Amino acid sequence: MLVVMQQDASEAQIQKIIQRLMEDGFDVHRSTGVLHTVLGGVGGKDDFDTAVVQVMDGVKEVHRIVAPYKLASRAFNPAGTVVKVRDVEIGGNKVVVMAGPCSVESYEQIERSADIVADGGASVLRGGAFKPRSSPYSFQGLGEEGLRLLRTAADRRGLLVISEVMDAVQIPLLTAYSDILQLGARNMQNFNLLRELGKIRKPVLLKRGIAATIEELLLSAEYIMAGGNYEVILCERGIRTFETYTRNTMDISAIPVLHKLSHLPVVADPSHGTGRRDLVPPMACASVAAGADALLIEVHHDPDHAFSDGAQSLYPDQYFELMKQLRVIAPAVGRVVE
Amino acid sequence: MLVVMQQDASEAQIQKIIQRLMEDGFDVHRSTGVLHTVLGGVGGKDDFDTAVVQVMDGVKEVHRIVAPYKLASRAFNPAGTVVKVRDVEIGGNKVVVMAGPCSVESYEQIERSADIVADGGASVLRGGAFKPRSSPYSFQGLGEEGLRLLRTAADRRGLLVISEVMDAVQIPLLTAYSDILQLGARNMQNFNLLRELGKIRKPVLLKRGIAATIEELLLSAEYIMAGGNYEVILCERGIRTFETYTRNTMDISAIPVLHKLSHLPVVADPSHGTGRRDLVPPMACASVAAGADALLIEVHHDPDHAFSDGAQSLYPDQYFELMKQLRVIAPAVGRVVE
Amino acid sequence: MLVVMQQDASEAQIQKIIQRLMEDGFDVHRSTGVLHTVLGGVGGKDDFDTAVVQVMDGVKEVHRIVAPYKLASRAFNPAGTVVKVRDVEIGGNKVVVMAGPCSVESYEQIERSADIVADGGASVLRGGAFKPRSSPYSFQGLGEEGLRLLRTAADRRGLLVISEVMDAVQIPLLTAYSDILQLGARNMQNFNLLRELGKIRKPVLLKRGIAATIEELLLSAEYIMAGGNYEVILCERGIRTFETYTRNTMDISAIPVLHKLSHLPVVADPSHGTGRRDLVPPMACASVAAGADALLIEVHHDPDHAFSDGAQSLYPDQYFELMKQLRVIAPAVGRVVE
Amino acid sequence: MLVVMQQDASEAQIQKIIQRLMEDGFDVHRSTGVLHTVLGGVGGKDDFDTAVVQVMDGVKEVHRIVAPYKLASRAFNPAGTVVKVRDVEIGGNKVVVMAGPCSVESYEQIERSADIVADGGASVLRGGAFKPRSSPYSFQGLGEEGLRLLRTAADRRGLLVISEVMDAVQIPLLTAYSDILQLGARNMQNFNLLRELGKIRKPVLLKRGIAATIEELLLSAEYIMAGGNYEVILCERGIRTFETYTRNTMDISAIPVLHKLSHLPVVADPSHGTGRRDLVPPMACASVAAGADALLIEVHHDPDHAFSDGAQSLYPDQYFELMKQLRVIAPAVGRVVE
Repeated sequence: MLVVMQQDASEAQIQKIIQRLMEDGFDVHRSTGVLHTVLGGVGGKDDFDTAVVQVMDGVKEVHRIVAPYKLASRAFNPAGTVVKVRDVEIGGNKVVVMAGPCSVESYEQIERSADIVADGGASVLRGGAFKPRSSPYSFQGLGEEGLRLLRTAADRRGLLVISEVMDAVQIPLLTAYSDILQLGARNMQNFNLLRELGKIRKPVLLKRGIAATIEELLLSAEYIMAGGNYEVILCERGIRTFETYTRNTMDISAIPVLHKLSHLPVVADPSHGTGRRDLVPPMACASVAAGADALLIEVHHDPDHAFSDGAQSLYPDQYFELMKQLRVIAPAVGRVVE
Repeated sequence: MLVVMQQDASEAQIQKIIQRLMEDGFDVHRSTGVLHTVLGGVGGKDDFDTAVVQVMDGVKEVHRIVAPYKLASRAFNPAGTVVKVRDVEIGGNKVVVMAGPCSVESYEQIERSADIVADGGASVLRGGAFKPRSSPYSFQGLGEEGLRLLRTAADRRGLLVISEVMDAVQIPLLTAYSDILQLGARNMQNFNLLRELGKIRKPVLLKRGIAATIEELLLSAEYIMAGGNYEVILCERGIRTFETYTRNTMDISAIPVLHKLSHLPVVADPSHGTGRRDLVPPMACASVAAGADALLIEVHHDPDHAFSDGAQSLYPDQYFELMKQLRVIAPAVGRVVE
Repeated sequence: MLVVMQQDASEAQIQKIIQRLMEDGFDVHRSTGVLHTVLGGVGGKDDFDTAVVQVMDGVKEVHRIVAPYKLASRAFNPAGTVVKVRDVEIGGNKVVVMAGPCSVESYEQIERSADIVADGGASVLRGGAFKPRSSPYSFQGLGEEGLRLLRTAADRRGLLVISEVMDAVQIPLLTAYSDILQLGARNMQNFNLLRELGKIRKPVLLKRGIAATIEELLLSAEYIMAGGNYEVILCERGIRTFETYTRNTMDISAIPVLHKLSHLPVVADPSHGTGRRDLVPPMACASVAAGADALLIEVHHDPDHAFSDGAQSLYPDQYFELMKQLRVIAPAVGRVVE
Repeated sequence: MLVVMQQDASEAQIQKIIQRLMEDGFDVHRSTGVLHTVLGGVGGKDDFDTAVVQVMDGVKEVHRIVAPYKLASRAFNPAGTVVKVRDVEIGGNKVVVMAGPCSVESYEQIERSADIVADGGASVLRGGAFKPRSSPYSFQGLGEEGLRLLRTAADRRGLLVISEVMDAVQIPLLTAYSDILQLGARNMQNFNLLRELGKIRKPVLLKRGIAATIEELLLSAEYIMAGGNYEVILCERGIRTFETYTRNTMDISAIPVLHKLSHLPVVADPSHGTGRRDLVPPMACASVAAGADALLIEVHHDPDHAFSDGAQSLYPDQYFELMKQLRVIAPAVGRVVE
């Protein structure tokens, strides 16, 4: 930690800072410049709240030097992590496509979805079983029955399964039926849930919150990894900005930034990133061109009658067409799409 | 719902929209203007997702007419709601001050806090018992023991208690010890928790999420009220913007806007709204001047050694001084501070 | 314009709105629904400020129906506009690359730049001659001498020239030396300058302001077009958000959205969009994959010693490598890069 | 400047940074920590672009130590600056109110406005003479005739005049007629205009841009002051956020923050800050409670028929009522409103 004192900081103020840092176990090095005294704090508690020093008298600014995440940082595994589930490698040479409906609605729907998804070339089937909605009267998901249908449909077509966990009590159910557990944007800082996901040994796809910085996303990944679960997949799915035409502003630059700062694989979700079906294909193409390791896309056999998220679900033909485009783009970044 | 068609929309496109709306139970009125055809949809499902129509061919824009919240709207109780707990009225003539430390740390700490809080003139004692933190090694709160200490200290000084609930399983404990349950910003859209809070009969202080619009805050209030719990108190505590000097940008204008749109009382939390002790008094004053019904403020007998949020906790003297200022300001808006 | 009245709006309030709209030349159609009265205003002044009605008593919300831009809208030229300068077509089958240094610094620098730019396959040379800087003591650009050097270097290699205009008094100079005039993000709503650019007959590349919505960008394009200059090229170059790792957040989704709403060609500027050299290639690739008609990229023969914007200027080798990637990607969206 | 190297930075990378900094005149001090090497750069060019070092290999982060503004910083005049125009002191004990219409529309209008403004107790009359508008067919202001009318009306009632300058060519006219020159939010970073305003000897009210940070506002003030004009008044008028109910989000916390960082007086503009008449009084009260030295408020004798900004202009009665409230609030912060 570096504490930069104000130009006119008094010796008494400087001493008070030094004392405060030493109380928390820091060794303090003092460097007196022409204009500013700079105090360097080494050691000390990892979770020391720098704001405490920031508001002390005479302090101009405080900078943390050591990144607050370690396990999630690129330095921890410079070669990059490949999350492998059966024969699917996320973070490897192939760009992995995860596709399917927002919610599992019925046997017929998920079976048809699995066929579309597999025919197009994706290797993971997505589908939600728990759907707490903004209205208490809306469709709330099929629960365990939905997971069972999802698993059956995926197995028939040789697909992996990804599904969202909303609460710690659902973890046993999801680990039983799903190959990858998805943690939604609203739960990115649900620390209880992060801790529980650190205890399991299944990959977790962690979505960036709509108001979360890239650093905060990595801190949440760190939380899971600190529990011993190193198979975390990061997901960009749009942030909230002043622009209202799109539901969110998809931050494509987060993809190369995450690759620079972290060794974890990065997935892009253009369906939630835009909220509009017509924008999904261009943003999916852009994501792969920017280096995404995988895509998470909503596809429905009949989006006009989907129980949820219909507006952002691709028609089957759009999905097939998109897969063709991706096969052309991937080689530009040294990847392939099957 | 009003659907405005594009200038060049075809009759077939218009018919497809009409049919889609009728499927969901809407009566459709068609109005053909010089440039645009406008379709008005009346009735239909409350939770109909307008985005489904938004992305259909030939559609220019879609506007909901009926606000998606009813119980929380001003029209539901034009005179305004007063949440009454024993002799404290939130939303009444007196500006209510809720003050105390971020976390309950020890018997001595909370007893001293209660004295400071009561001596200054506040009527509610705040303090957290569950503190899931960004580091799994940090202080996690005292749990039930913390609640017990909080209750004891408050009772000794005739104060009410407010404390945060983080998970549905904590609800019984909190209803047992606390007069008001606080729902944090990160849980504003935790629909499971909202539903459970709708079932209890204790006031809930609902904090605005850092990326939540005013409308979304009211929708979350609606969710609680739909369950039968009408005692919801809204809380502005800062939103995330591009400005980095403050931790959040406190949206003071949300106070009069919420009063216009809703009958529910509005509380301001300048401690989280700014993240810096030196900004808390001016923002507390501003909040009361803008019409806040109550304040939620962090005060600690020794902020430099607080277990959490020390940088934004007031020193006792700052708090006493602030209370004096508030007594001058309140009459300007027809209120009093005791 | 649609005016939705509150549920409890009185007849007197409704009549006052009707009268107000008629004063401004609107024909008013009244539609009484189950819950809300809706007033439709047709005709009236194009620049009527809907906020005036918005704040009147009894009004719930006001929606404009007719987009405030016409000439810039897709409906004005559904096939899409191709801006042609000599043999370069922006908006045609080829993705056009505009590259070069931030500022023209010297004869040698711009000559070397022109060689790099042309060798890589770009067809337009960029370079600034006027550089008002945040410090009055910094390099302010070479002025007319810079434009002369830029033109000479471009002509030698058969390149077009694009350069920025900062003030209306510079327009004659820029029209003399430059094939395309660039209007910077800070001037996107400089209405004096927009009006003057409407009078010339040279293409204008209009950059989106960092806090401008897509609609506001189109309104500024409309302003130029209203003056008779129809050759406007839109440019996405990043918006300001809460994320601080990148200088701006490049809104890639604006590319397909602009193509949907407008017939004008769309350029992406990943150099300003990210502010970091290492992010320029992935974001350039993403832009082309999302359908950009052209790219505007900063390249310098020695970025470490550039007079300005060195951190976001590509090294020559990075630029050559990027051009190779783009040649692979473009066919995925039915385009070519030469 | 502090350059923090990555943990795994090589000696060659470190040497390259040192050399780069020395080229630009920095003395470099090296400090090798347990995990990170930190390089301190002292001296060197004031306007050195730290991003150049930020993107070099092996660099983790770069922090400027010396604030990029000096003349505008609080340290330059710890007691605070009072801008005095005749007998009006901005930054002194009295909260100064500047009020009047958005535009000067006619002799009668501005005379009536001056009466209202003076009767209410304000001491400065505002009114625009140049109104470049989003539509080229809208009212564009009365120009010099407007300034003449404004001056005459103000003089009759003993008021000062404030009016906006849009272009450097208007400076002579504005200095002739107006006591304070206002620079609008869109021109906050118009460096040509800032430089010209540095040459005059009249106070300049500098508005914060809607996407400008507090630091950027102070940098623009520095630009004017560097030219020798030290009478700069800072103005908060709302920033752009994701919230759409209000036109902008007024950042009330900027008022105490600016007072902390700078010695310059701070004005609040709740009219532009909210865009809605009904929100102006609460936000004006909040601004004074938060320590604003002055207010800038739009008042019109007939807002429903104002040529511009009618929706955010107060009715005369609202203004009189507001002035009464302010007289109650000001003493809470040690001020008075006359």
